[in-house]
Amino acid sequence: VSIITLLTDFGVNDEFVGVMKGVILSVNPAARIVDITHAVDPQDILQAAFLINAAWSYFPTGTVHVVVIDPGVGSQRSIVAIQKAGHIFLAPDNGVLTLLLEANDIGEAVRVENPEFFLHPVSDTFHGRDIFAPVSAHLSAGLVMRQLGTDILPRQLIRLSIPKTKAIRPNELSGIIISVDRFGNLITNIHQSELKCVDDLSDGREPEIAIGDQTIVGIHRSFHQASAGESLAIIGSRGYLEIAVNCGNAAALFKAKRGDPVHVRWQEKHPCR
Amino acid sequence: VSIITLLTDFGVNDEFVGVMKGVILSVNPAARIVDITHAVDPQDILQAAFLINAAWSYFPTGTVHVVVIDPGVGSQRSIVAIQKAGHIFLAPDNGVLTLLLEANDIGEAVRVENPEFFLHPVSDTFHGRDIFAPVSAHLSAGLVMRQLGTDILPRQLIRLSIPKTKAIRPNELSGIIISVDRFGNLITNIHQSELKCVDDLSDGREPEIAIGDQTIVGIHRSFHQASAGESLAIIGSRGYLEIAVNCGNAAALFKAKRGDPVHVRWQEKHPCR
Amino acid sequence: VSIITLLTDFGVNDEFVGVMKGVILSVNPAARIVDITHAVDPQDILQAAFLINAAWSYFPTGTVHVVVIDPGVGSQRSIVAIQKAGHIFLAPDNGVLTLLLEANDIGEAVRVENPEFFLHPVSDTFHGRDIFAPVSAHLSAGLVMRQLGTDILPRQLIRLSIPKTKAIRPNELSGIIISVDRFGNLITNIHQSELKCVDDLSDGREPEIAIGDQTIVGIHRSFHQASAGESLAIIGSRGYLEIAVNCGNAAALFKAKRGDPVHVRWQEKHPCR
Repeated sequence: VSIITLLTDFGVNDEFVGVMKGVILSVNPAARIVDITHAVDPQDILQAAFLINAAWSYFPTGTVHVVVIDPGVGSQRSIVAIQKAGHIFLAPDNGVLTLLLEANDIGEAVRVENPEFFLHPVSDTFHGRDIFAPVSAHLSAGLVMRQLGTDILPRQLIRLSIPKTKAIRPNELSGIIISVDRFGNLITNIHQSELKCVDDLSDGREPEIAIGDQTIVGIHRSFHQASAGESLAIIGSRGYLEIAVNCGNAAALFKAKRGDPVHVRWQEKHPCR
Repeated sequence: VSIITLLTDFGVNDEFVGVMKGVILSVNPAARIVDITHAVDPQDILQAAFLINAAWSYFPTGTVHVVVIDPGVGSQRSIVAIQKAGHIFLAPDNGVLTLLLEANDIGEAVRVENPEFFLHPVSDTFHGRDIFAPVSAHLSAGLVMRQLGTDILPRQLIRLSIPKTKAIRPNELSGIIISVDRFGNLITNIHQSELKCVDDLSDGREPEIAIGDQTIVGIHRSFHQASAGESLAIIGSRGYLEIAVNCGNAAALFKAKRGDPVHVRWQEKHPCR
Repeated sequence: VSIITLLTDFGVNDEFVGVMKGVILSVNPAARIVDITHAVDPQDILQAAFLINAAWSYFPTGTVHVVVIDPGVGSQRSIVAIQKAGHIFLAPDNGVLTLLLEANDIGEAVRVENPEFFLHPVSDTFHGRDIFAPVSAHLSAGLVMRQLGTDILPRQLIRLSIPKTKAIRPNELSGIIISVDRFGNLITNIHQSELKCVDDLSDGREPEIAIGDQTIVGIHRSFHQASAGESLAIIGSRGYLEIAVNCGNAAALFKAKRGDPVHVRWQEKHPCR
């Protein structure tokens, strides 16, 4: 089985995604194509970086993941293919793969240069169709990566500056809202590993989570530990701290949006330090 | 061929649906996955109950239908798998399968409990990924249902209170709008079987359909029996009475929404009674 | 491999598209189904005519393209199947295939009449489910077109009046905006072939593109030849003149919408004439 995932900012109202799939199936009729999402905000590389990081590992080894958030199409930016944990990622070299690079487990990495695997004539406006689609199809059919172009070192890849959490006091961690999901859950950049001692805490030492002028006490395991309509903090399915409302919409309740600050405070100093 | 359909309230802007597909294909690479819709309003079990009821029978025998409208995720609610007419349905036991139970033709029914078929660690927030996806994949690959857990009786399943039509006078039936489709057609809960004598009616005995302070005379067979922009009543593709506007939008014209009342009135008493 | 593409105005919030796929897979379990888009504005035949024209040729020979923009469902309008360049198109005979007919390379063309290949009972409201889906599945499985009904001549097919460009002066061409894509790019009906001498022009003879009370000088090859936030004219991926904003939204900047006029002016007379 040869699976290709697509993650783009193309939307689904125009013909762009369908055209990419047509090109893929023209090259590799056996490819299985799965949409991650096409609703990334136009040119929002950071948003896509979190999405591909959240999704890729649930696919089988050998999957080819195509990420086309490509404001630099037609410029001198490179297209790269990298291997990681038996998966292949194909994307513009614009930082969209940043979070995948943090584990330092990149295998082969190449610049995609060989026009033999492109759809011609190659436009200057739609490389999704002319380069990403046919190259992903060839990769899914078993093309050896080095056929695509010259090797590059992982450290040469462009990386985004990812908003990091900060320990602003011995007992306080600050982060931000990275995204708001369909349910209005507020997904922060505070990973569960930064809170991991919390499980062992006894009463009175649970952290408070502050957003705007509101405070939530404690971190719950499931939405249902709060009453319907009540807000709670939870470790979400991506492994990050989320602020949610059971059977409700936290973004609406807190009037919160991406980029807003979130603080985690312990009564004493952070127990992991 | 092993087909899995997905009906959720996850939307398509986040990675949730793509992740479920990755998990499914990891378990059963031969699965064919079809989206019914992911645009159910968050936690709207009733809406989903009508959608799965409208869709399932058009798929081949053997299809596994996965319905994840799951406000109780992480609570003590059960997940169930039921057989009906050669299809398998996998859903939380929260009433979302209510309409499928009305025909009293449920075959095997089990509580899904066996962690052998789950993705571990099982979260308390995303059973779509951790339970529904892998279990559906195993079922589509031929897993025998009783392997999943203990038998339950269909009458033990939770059922929603479905809004029923009422005969409020000998010649008048009242119902409500159950949903509004993309074209603005107003789909009621009045099934054609409740109007079935109408076909035989001669002039002057056709029913009137009242919505708000407006009245529509007669039930048409196709949109084109009304002029462009004119309203009409029709038996829609789900088999229920709908109010439509030929080449227009009934929801906008009538300022109508889900839950609004609709009345059917005959000049004499209801001919079926 | 047997590929079926779907282009409809059904949206993805209701069960309509899922139901069509269920019917297709019931007839031909081996069919590969690709969505072009389901977000065509309700009953907007012209919009769909441009979309199918932009998409079809990127699919492999043998693909069956299904277009269901069908305001005449239930009326006397015909359904037709036509062959072109080794592809098959199945659509209502309402002009939605107009742009495909311009090349005068239609092979076989038939009226779809044989109920043997329909899903029964055939409704008067949802031929997507009852006729288009099963017929496309049979075609994808190798059904010979003449089995579907009587031959028709391409010139008998209904054609839309497509908005044409006009040479309003020796040095000026007028067109209109045909669609606005997800990025806010304004796609005109001015094909690159009408501008094709431009490549050879020396300085001072590049055309000006006028939209509203604004003017853009020259036609660029890629978005990146303008600064971020700057407007530019470009030949888009469909081969038509587009007005864009690098890393921005031209529809918002110019407050422009479909149908708005666009003018191309050369300092001297149009170099191609």
